[in-house]
Amino acid sequence: MNSDSLILSQLSETGVLRLTLNDESRRNALSEAMLNQLQKVISDVSEDPQVRVVILAASGPAFCAGHNLKEMTAGRAAEDQGRAYFARIMQLCSSVMQSIVNCPKPIIAEVKGIATAAGCQLVASCDLAVASTEAKFSTPGVHIGLFCSTPMVALSRNLSNKHAMEMLLLGDMVSAERAAEMGLVNRVVPEGVLQQVTQDMADRIASKSSKTLAIGKRAFYVQREMSLSDAYEYASAVMVDNMLESDAQEGIRAFMEKREPKWQD
Amino acid sequence: MNSDSLILSQLSETGVLRLTLNDESRRNALSEAMLNQLQKVISDVSEDPQVRVVILAASGPAFCAGHNLKEMTAGRAAEDQGRAYFARIMQLCSSVMQSIVNCPKPIIAEVKGIATAAGCQLVASCDLAVASTEAKFSTPGVHIGLFCSTPMVALSRNLSNKHAMEMLLLGDMVSAERAAEMGLVNRVVPEGVLQQVTQDMADRIASKSSKTLAIGKRAFYVQREMSLSDAYEYASAVMVDNMLESDAQEGIRAFMEKREPKWQD
Amino acid sequence: MNSDSLILSQLSETGVLRLTLNDESRRNALSEAMLNQLQKVISDVSEDPQVRVVILAASGPAFCAGHNLKEMTAGRAAEDQGRAYFARIMQLCSSVMQSIVNCPKPIIAEVKGIATAAGCQLVASCDLAVASTEAKFSTPGVHIGLFCSTPMVALSRNLSNKHAMEMLLLGDMVSAERAAEMGLVNRVVPEGVLQQVTQDMADRIASKSSKTLAIGKRAFYVQREMSLSDAYEYASAVMVDNMLESDAQEGIRAFMEKREPKWQD
Repeated sequence: MNSDSLILSQLSETGVLRLTLNDESRRNALSEAMLNQLQKVISDVSEDPQVRVVILAASGPAFCAGHNLKEMTAGRAAEDQGRAYFARIMQLCSSVMQSIVNCPKPIIAEVKGIATAAGCQLVASCDLAVASTEAKFSTPGVHIGLFCSTPMVALSRNLSNKHAMEMLLLGDMVSAERAAEMGLVNRVVPEGVLQQVTQDMADRIASKSSKTLAIGKRAFYVQREMSLSDAYEYASAVMVDNMLESDAQEGIRAFMEKREPKWQD
Repeated sequence: MNSDSLILSQLSETGVLRLTLNDESRRNALSEAMLNQLQKVISDVSEDPQVRVVILAASGPAFCAGHNLKEMTAGRAAEDQGRAYFARIMQLCSSVMQSIVNCPKPIIAEVKGIATAAGCQLVASCDLAVASTEAKFSTPGVHIGLFCSTPMVALSRNLSNKHAMEMLLLGDMVSAERAAEMGLVNRVVPEGVLQQVTQDMADRIASKSSKTLAIGKRAFYVQREMSLSDAYEYASAVMVDNMLESDAQEGIRAFMEKREPKWQD
Repeated sequence: MNSDSLILSQLSETGVLRLTLNDESRRNALSEAMLNQLQKVISDVSEDPQVRVVILAASGPAFCAGHNLKEMTAGRAAEDQGRAYFARIMQLCSSVMQSIVNCPKPIIAEVKGIATAAGCQLVASCDLAVASTEAKFSTPGVHIGLFCSTPMVALSRNLSNKHAMEMLLLGDMVSAERAAEMGLVNRVVPEGVLQQVTQDMADRIASKSSKTLAIGKRAFYVQREMSLSDAYEYASAVMVDNMLESDAQEGIRAFMEKREPKWQD
């Protein structure tokens, strides 16, 4: 466990890597340093065979308050009023969010407290999300004259138009229960059991073949953007390749022999 | 307030324009005249700096009963059995619906009573919708041999496939509560407070920077149709431009100084 | 009624064809033979003017358990380890699912018991679905090293990303109630009335003009994959053609004369 950083990481025996945003005094804001660490850790995780599933959690009462406005404002001092700097930060943040989607390991957000702006986007970008009853979500950029236009990308790929627009135009805090109704989070549980419920979910996914999870996660987001016929052509090819993997051979054999499978990956 | 027309309009001090479909005897049907007025008023609204948010309401017990079937039928008398006329009406109606989406001001539907066929499409096309407990929604074209194919465009961009198909194939009246579950409306409130709730919602949005709302609304519908990576590239550029707008500078400064922002727009 | 086959079919006086998957001992698995029969029957149905609506039901306690794993495994004996065979099965299955979408007649799944893997995909592919309180749904491929990548195509076109991923990554059985919340099924009713409720729904749709249903169903799935402006252009043209059909002329006339319409189709 490396505690000398903005992100703590702890690997369980089951192959679940618990990443904890650890900048409590800044409500785990996505500063440039935090984004760079997040980028690096997700890149490392993607390559690390020991990591089967990732939980993204946070220290302190807030999950993540979005961009670091103080840092952003300091960027205005540059000759171009910050244009180049803002572009770099936005590009970096968008890259982090997409690396979550592109990471071959399933990533579960574990949310207590507030997840706002790019922090809400982080939750929307994860494959799954578990929230405590007290968690709250918002895209409040509209209050400060800066519409949450990058968070909307992730948001609108999870919520219906009217629900996404409600969050974006009003900027209100949305309860965990409402977030679940809208499809932003999968489960809402009391804070006392949040970590355990998320860990159990992660453990169960970690008990599956990593190779299979990687095939499936990738296929999901790729086919999502295709026409129905293209999606079926693509997914059929994925299934054929998957059938020929040793883990599918073992998994199907184990199922027919009524025993637990032993994965290679 | 202009009462000499099919659409009443009233601008509040807060910059909320209340448009009221005012053809109660025809249940506010989208006749050619009504569509033309709606087109014109939305076009005017788009350019009018005094209007910050629009509420779309209706006179009488019905919100809007869709196309004017009597007028449509009269069109059949033409030599081409009405083909050119129907094409003009459909083009006009589709243009009105898209002008709602493309209008830089947020538009909120306030629905009491029935919203059927193109009237339901009108609700689906607005950015937000508030309904009274007694409001009802349907796409009943299937009952008269005329499938609600243009309403389905707006409907299917708000509802899941099965929910949209349920409305389209059965043509049943759907309760406000069910419409909320399906994502067609944002809130359901007793009729007695409908106007106040909608006005409050509009006032809160009107208190934001108009420039920011315009940037965000446009970005929402544009990125919605892109692939994830294109959407992030586009939205990042939007964010950078937004950061350099004076309202974002003021908004962020006000936030850090814990005071109310003063918008230029 | 033909009982000498894997699929029973029974046509009601109202033009509702009840197809019953009838391989109870194999939990109605989508074997190659079953897929071929399903393909053929849907192809026949598409051409048969007597059939107005289709109900897809199943014999025995299970709705459909997905692919026949025993048969798939036998395919591994081939020189290419089954690649050509798997490709044929996946292509066939994807073709069946798309033929449901492309069939001009509305197709309603009637689900009691489990609908798993490609069986869950079958439900997701139908236009509407009614489930018994005891029905259960899952995409459990992840348990056997074979991610449900083709089922995800249908699933992700009905459910939000997080809901679809929850089913795909965990492989858990999902209750009928939860399936309804997520948009996978339209209605949940006690098993004792399941057949009656589905038949009533089918009868009501069957009482509409077949021509109109065909126009609308096709338009729905076509416009769903278009940009908003292309969708409106396309749907407007569909509406104009629909207006000129005799059934629309009759339907609108009947409505204005307050009588029941008499459809040609």
